[in-house]
Amino acid sequence: MNTGNKLWRGSQRPIHIQEVGTRDGLQVEPVFVPTEDKIALVNALSDAGLAKIEVTAFVSPQAIPALRDAETVLREIQRRPGVVYSALVPNVRGAERAIDARADEFNLVMSCSETHNLANLRMTRAQSFAALADVIALAKATANGPALNVSLSCSFGCPMEGDVPAEVVLDWAARFVDLGVRGVTLCDTTGMAYPSQVAALTEAFRARWPATELTLHFHNTRGMGLANVLAAIDAGADRFDASLGGLGGCPYAPGATGNVCTEEIVHALELMGYATGVDQDKLLGAARWLPALVGHDVPSQIVKAGRRLDLHPVPADFEAIRERALARG
Amino acid sequence: MNTGNKLWRGSQRPIHIQEVGTRDGLQVEPVFVPTEDKIALVNALSDAGLAKIEVTAFVSPQAIPALRDAETVLREIQRRPGVVYSALVPNVRGAERAIDARADEFNLVMSCSETHNLANLRMTRAQSFAALADVIALAKATANGPALNVSLSCSFGCPMEGDVPAEVVLDWAARFVDLGVRGVTLCDTTGMAYPSQVAALTEAFRARWPATELTLHFHNTRGMGLANVLAAIDAGADRFDASLGGLGGCPYAPGATGNVCTEEIVHALELMGYATGVDQDKLLGAARWLPALVGHDVPSQIVKAGRRLDLHPVPADFEAIRERALARG
Repeated sequence: MNTGNKLWRGSQRPIHIQEVGTRDGLQVEPVFVPTEDKIALVNALSDAGLAKIEVTAFVSPQAIPALRDAETVLREIQRRPGVVYSALVPNVRGAERAIDARADEFNLVMSCSETHNLANLRMTRAQSFAALADVIALAKATANGPALNVSLSCSFGCPMEGDVPAEVVLDWAARFVDLGVRGVTLCDTTGMAYPSQVAALTEAFRARWPATELTLHFHNTRGMGLANVLAAIDAGADRFDASLGGLGGCPYAPGATGNVCTEEIVHALELMGYATGVDQDKLLGAARWLPALVGHDVPSQIVKAGRRLDLHPVPADFEAIRERALARG
Repeated sequence: MNTGNKLWRGSQRPIHIQEVGTRDGLQVEPVFVPTEDKIALVNALSDAGLAKIEVTAFVSPQAIPALRDAETVLREIQRRPGVVYSALVPNVRGAERAIDARADEFNLVMSCSETHNLANLRMTRAQSFAALADVIALAKATANGPALNVSLSCSFGCPMEGDVPAEVVLDWAARFVDLGVRGVTLCDTTGMAYPSQVAALTEAFRARWPATELTLHFHNTRGMGLANVLAAIDAGADRFDASLGGLGGCPYAPGATGNVCTEEIVHALELMGYATGVDQDKLLGAARWLPALVGHDVPSQIVKAGRRLDLHPVPADFEAIRERALARG
């Protein structure tokens, strides 16, 4: 028994929710979502009060045609003060495009697993690190340049290698912290994280780098997404990636579902008394638009079932049922 | 920060997992699962090491034809020592049938919500209580009679009324505890429970009735199932209903998904170091049989994605990718 565990009483502690559906979600969709719809979606997410939005990726349009309109989207969204508009940047060429389009933040990605990095990025980890170090140097040399965040894939396990030791994850984080990045995201790329592990790694990170912005990025592949968020909060984290509707996935882990669902996480945390700053009506409005945009149902349980107190009518014959029951005395 | 929270380290604390899929799951399936398959399924669940199995329901065969073979199933399963074979019993007629078929335990059901009780059971709560008190009297008058458990629906909210005050839930529990039941199940019938509420109600129940067997019964309707299990564990609970494959639902809450999924809960708790006593290979074998039995996919994320360390092969061209990468130096 653990009477009085503060985890269950949020006490309006701020938790920052960062939307990745527009990048991590849309990049794996087979349909091309029209540019004006992407812009409207980002604007709706801004209006809902999310802390950060990973708007798009400055990758090769041939490699990921779904995001070939990166410049246009990032240039034409309405920038809401206080929201960080981030973009995935894989290399110097992408960085130049993202600077032109005025990304507030670069999100740099490599994997803690050598096998996953090779399979996904076709480079060794050392090669990825060197390429990202060049991007960091360019960003730092740019007047009013972007903030820098690095996302470390497979921080909680690799779907091909298995466990990835915490020391390996922290070593790669250290190399980027030494280069002066503002933030690090520990990514559970294929849903292998579990709460005990999350609490331990979060605690270790926070203890070593209290001033670095730490984000946790979970997938709900094995149903542990929200539990992992709570374990991370308990260990001192306050920033989470999430994807509207629960969009997303990973081609190297068949059966993997998407990122944790933004509206599910916000719904749960707000019920628990945490302050996400998100307007749930606006967020759910955007989520309910998704199936029409991507052409299929989305995993979101909140889109399916509504919020906790979205009530249902009594059966049509309820009064007759009641009268018959009361007549029995 | 909450360094050292024991919740994240199970330390082999025993948690009892109680299967309800054979009753709560199969009763809402449109297909009739053949009797011999039901028996084989219960035997497989026994063999997997579940603490309790709600085998069937002694309800009207006209009302729930899916379970019209209740006597045969309960008589012909192999009884594994230590496993409690429970059956839902709605009234004295059902109790007589269940005693004949040698149910180890009666599970009695009524709702904490007047509206839900009328809609679901066509009786007022007072009428339900009186009928169940008759069942309890019969059971107690039976030599070597069954153990008694009462499941209180809508303990965390009613899909038609909204919030149900904790005092109302505890008052109904008190009336059954006073009649000498061994256990009480607090049921989150339509997935309205959230962790703060779960921790508070569990703690209140445990403080008032430390000797009563307390079960928590959650649905994953809004994605909070596992988080609710962890909140209850943190507040002193050690028994949970769950449904193989995540089968189940409630006709009065459209969009509601099933019970929390047995193999998801066992998978997560075992990773965290809790001792469920369940053999996951055997459990997952049974879960993978379900789609063929019920004729559709099941919600289980573990059936879809496998366990955390069920790894995937590298891409077919992986060696070529690596060689090209290394050649770049």
